[in-house]
Amino acid sequence: MIKVNFLYPNKPGSRFDADYYIGTHMPLAIRLLKPALKAVTAEVGISSAMPDQPPPYAAIANFTFESVQAFGEAVMPHYQKLQGDIPNYTDIEPVVQISEIRISE
Amino acid sequence: MIKVNFLYPNKPGSRFDADYYIGTHMPLAIRLLKPALKAVTAEVGISSAMPDQPPPYAAIANFTFESVQAFGEAVMPHYQKLQGDIPNYTDIEPVVQISEIRISE
Repeated sequence: MIKVNFLYPNKPGSRFDADYYIGTHMPLAIRLLKPALKAVTAEVGISSAMPDQPPPYAAIANFTFESVQAFGEAVMPHYQKLQGDIPNYTDIEPVVQISEIRISE
Repeated sequence: MIKVNFLYPNKPGSRFDADYYIGTHMPLAIRLLKPALKAVTAEVGISSAMPDQPPPYAAIANFTFESVQAFGEAVMPHYQKLQGDIPNYTDIEPVVQISEIRISE
């Protein structure tokens, strides 16, 4: 199984509308990426390791697929629509990571 | 529920022993952090969004706890042991993020 992460680095002065991200963008992404999408989480940053320090990332989304190919096939028809929604909640360009899931408990 | 991420940025010239990380360090962390640890995943980077580009992170670990307090109480007795194991697999200093889980499906 693979995981696709979208990580939004928390730059000073940047804009991130967590309510829109969680309430509108993520449900849209989830609806469009099913049934290939096997699991999903979305998290909003609280802090770094130090509770009084800002989080390195405003938010992180985690999408689980069976394979890189399955992810590619699922996202290609919807890529422009999803990317086009990003300015509605942020001016941060997300960092994208594709990983192999090696432990899952 | 909260998630604690340890993200290892993939710096050129850096060392990351994924076999030790997955086979030794993560099982140690999981054993020490239970029963407060509610869920865990560990992923090894494949690529960025472009399949021919290196992953931004060598690896990412994700730990789920009921609260920041539960995480703090679980990790404090074992923090030095876990941090002391890091040089056995990498010279990369992990980025640590604590987030609130807002979507989990």
